[in-house]
Amino acid sequence: MATDLKNVWYVAAWEWEIAGEALLARTLLGVPRVMFRRSDGGYALLRDRCPHRFAPLSLGRRTGDVIACRYHGLEFGPDGRCVHHPAGDRLPPRAGVESLPVVARHGLLWFWPGEAARADPATIPDFSFLDGQNVRRCYSHFRANYELLADNLMDLSHVDFLHRDTFQTTGTHAQSKHEVRDGAGETLWNTWLVPDVRRYPILDAHFRDGEKIDQLTEMRWDPPASMRLRIAWRPAAGAPGAARFEVVNPHIVTPETASTSHYFWSCEPTDADEAFARRVFEEEDGPMLEAAQSRMGGDDFWNLEPLVLRADVGAIRARRRLERLRRTESGAAPGGTD
Amino acid sequence: MATDLKNVWYVAAWEWEIAGEALLARTLLGVPRVMFRRSDGGYALLRDRCPHRFAPLSLGRRTGDVIACRYHGLEFGPDGRCVHHPAGDRLPPRAGVESLPVVARHGLLWFWPGEAARADPATIPDFSFLDGQNVRRCYSHFRANYELLADNLMDLSHVDFLHRDTFQTTGTHAQSKHEVRDGAGETLWNTWLVPDVRRYPILDAHFRDGEKIDQLTEMRWDPPASMRLRIAWRPAAGAPGAARFEVVNPHIVTPETASTSHYFWSCEPTDADEAFARRVFEEEDGPMLEAAQSRMGGDDFWNLEPLVLRADVGAIRARRRLERLRRTESGAAPGGTD
Amino acid sequence: MATDLKNVWYVAAWEWEIAGEALLARTLLGVPRVMFRRSDGGYALLRDRCPHRFAPLSLGRRTGDVIACRYHGLEFGPDGRCVHHPAGDRLPPRAGVESLPVVARHGLLWFWPGEAARADPATIPDFSFLDGQNVRRCYSHFRANYELLADNLMDLSHVDFLHRDTFQTTGTHAQSKHEVRDGAGETLWNTWLVPDVRRYPILDAHFRDGEKIDQLTEMRWDPPASMRLRIAWRPAAGAPGAARFEVVNPHIVTPETASTSHYFWSCEPTDADEAFARRVFEEEDGPMLEAAQSRMGGDDFWNLEPLVLRADVGAIRARRRLERLRRTESGAAPGGTD
Repeated sequence: MATDLKNVWYVAAWEWEIAGEALLARTLLGVPRVMFRRSDGGYALLRDRCPHRFAPLSLGRRTGDVIACRYHGLEFGPDGRCVHHPAGDRLPPRAGVESLPVVARHGLLWFWPGEAARADPATIPDFSFLDGQNVRRCYSHFRANYELLADNLMDLSHVDFLHRDTFQTTGTHAQSKHEVRDGAGETLWNTWLVPDVRRYPILDAHFRDGEKIDQLTEMRWDPPASMRLRIAWRPAAGAPGAARFEVVNPHIVTPETASTSHYFWSCEPTDADEAFARRVFEEEDGPMLEAAQSRMGGDDFWNLEPLVLRADVGAIRARRRLERLRRTESGAAPGGTD
Repeated sequence: MATDLKNVWYVAAWEWEIAGEALLARTLLGVPRVMFRRSDGGYALLRDRCPHRFAPLSLGRRTGDVIACRYHGLEFGPDGRCVHHPAGDRLPPRAGVESLPVVARHGLLWFWPGEAARADPATIPDFSFLDGQNVRRCYSHFRANYELLADNLMDLSHVDFLHRDTFQTTGTHAQSKHEVRDGAGETLWNTWLVPDVRRYPILDAHFRDGEKIDQLTEMRWDPPASMRLRIAWRPAAGAPGAARFEVVNPHIVTPETASTSHYFWSCEPTDADEAFARRVFEEEDGPMLEAAQSRMGGDDFWNLEPLVLRADVGAIRARRRLERLRRTESGAAPGGTD
Repeated sequence: MATDLKNVWYVAAWEWEIAGEALLARTLLGVPRVMFRRSDGGYALLRDRCPHRFAPLSLGRRTGDVIACRYHGLEFGPDGRCVHHPAGDRLPPRAGVESLPVVARHGLLWFWPGEAARADPATIPDFSFLDGQNVRRCYSHFRANYELLADNLMDLSHVDFLHRDTFQTTGTHAQSKHEVRDGAGETLWNTWLVPDVRRYPILDAHFRDGEKIDQLTEMRWDPPASMRLRIAWRPAAGAPGAARFEVVNPHIVTPETASTSHYFWSCEPTDADEAFARRVFEEEDGPMLEAAQSRMGGDDFWNLEPLVLRADVGAIRARRRLERLRRTESGAAPGGTD
């Protein structure tokens, strides 16, 4: 993960995962971290390794905002600084563990693994639609690289095949009008206009009998893999934008390691909806992505000379954009566009 | 496995394993493959990885001779060519997956991982004795390199020790006359003439009471590790060849990876016989070979300076022959004989 | 483990582990070994790999002091020499397996992985207190490097934190007077004088009601990680040495591999005492050490720039001493002191 993008906001957790006194241990970009909520309502995200004998601080004892290492009792504040040593050693000023900038926004905890001085919360992608939304905020773990997950989400043509039986789709996705365009900053908009879709039960309240329905699927992508999916339904003859009904969801992926990922998503707030979504994500997408990861055999994506298709344009554009951002960050010549 | 022999026939499966509509996934020489029976009675053996996003084709949906990838619906014919893409992309001519030459013969499916133009079915070793033979055609998996399995089969002196209790052998193997000679092409013949063997119950019908019995054990080897075992019993005073009874079996090994193997063998067609053979192979040979593999610690066979014994001559000759063939194939100077 | 210290005595096993006809297989310093008791009361420690086809000799059949390999019947004496081959091959004089110098002393089996000519039993650290001692001689396995275990034992300040609930300690260790001094040869003495300790029930018989008790904790260290722990209790006003009661225990660690260890220790001879000690070592120390090992991510100890504290002096001195001994052994310039 040493070569992955650093100067960008990643999601570490849902806020609810670190409510109360919880110490949440999670490996992020290959590095074990521990996070917790401070008494002032803010958050701390520290390296999960005591600098003395490498014990995980997440096994420690918490008192207020201070974590005492369970091994030899060194104590650390929420900024990572060692604030106390039981034997009263005068500690070197540098004594402590790395602390990363962290911001809670819209129920998600965002962290910045790069240069702290450049961590501007204004650049966190907008997920304000989550505020007050009555949804289940869910987490899944995948044994696949995060870009494979982003590919999956940026090329929804897979729904007609991988999720054919669960969604009972009729294969109309292939007939859709697909468009990828640049947004502000590094945002990409990936849209599909699918004509005459099957009438899902949830649409009955919004459309007349026999009325033909078009579906607009819109995936907004921000680096590294922070996506917002909006699906809007409108009368087939309707003007663009005149949606009668829509659903909006986050699909955010954070690398755990080079070959495993954290996936943050939401669904309707019922057990049945969560079970259905988990079936789709964890029993259909998950095994397929993990098989693809395994089939890659540790090789680089482009070395495998993947076949690039029209449905791929959004996924490939996102990959190219990440490559440009990584090159820029590492100081290499930017070379080409994405 | 990059350095293993390519221009030679290996066994991929028993034909019965891929009967009907089955898609059989199996890693061969380190590469995941999928195989199936075509509607014209022939067979297909393809790389088990869609060239688009690396999904295993073996998870796909089969319609006739076409496999549709379950991820994004790309369809592949039995020659590996991509024959359809749902969104109607014009595909580059090269679009497809690697297909290897494959031939069904004597109930076994043989494949050629090297240059297709050199794949001559006439060079498949003769296992015609299997045709019409009423035996169980069996498969075992070993976590050991295929040459360790071949060593085991080419030096049957191990029967007196590793299988002493199961076979109730009396250790006469050590007194046998052992001979290794070249056959046609690259074939090796490895024979043991064991005098005055124990009378197994199966021999009662063929020998008089008190009659002394000699046993001829003959292992025919062809590269890479395709062996045929013939055991013949004759009166101790009998002239060579005048066998009263014999059994013939295949013992064929294919590398799965550098440290794991596929093993194809047969036995009498009863549950008791299969159970006995599995006990011998999977509970006695298997654990010993896997322990040896582990004790090699990833090192090269010759680097470990193995003690070479007379009983080893056949096994060592086969190893030397493979080395010569690999050198020839890689274009290196042949250097020495085997 | 190629770079670890070779010319030093390590513990291979408790003598009781290899009583009678037992063949004990154990990996020591990365190399699989097999050990057994000879009929003359001495011991053998051999490489656990037949030189013919790499079968573990520990799977063999033992007759007296000879082990017959279970694979092809080669027989080896307790000095590792191949003494018999079933087919009567004339064996090369070097035929055999490596045998290491081994000495039983005080119930422990010590081995010397370096130059045999330098293996002087007089340099085995003194554990004679074990002779006739009525204790349980115990073994534990840890998935952590042996120096992390030694750190743990050389810095007992961890007891107040890691074992706080099990020992009900009151944190007085931090107030102790701590001293590390050189002993004879390469021995280190690591002592803590802990004032006014909690009165454990075992002390009731030795001290008057209300009498204040001081505790002397003394850890003797010899390379590589052979430690003897003595804890002595005396009246708070008492002169040094006038202990009323003491317990003495071995704490000896041998590397299995670079990241796993064998741990030899003792406790009082009751099930309750052993269960208590296993809880402390295997459920408290073990998981912490294994987490630290994992958090080191395969990196070198000093590369991780560990925070060095006063309580660490003994542990760090032992680490520095091992480094000096390794440098000397490898012929490098000694460079600095420890």
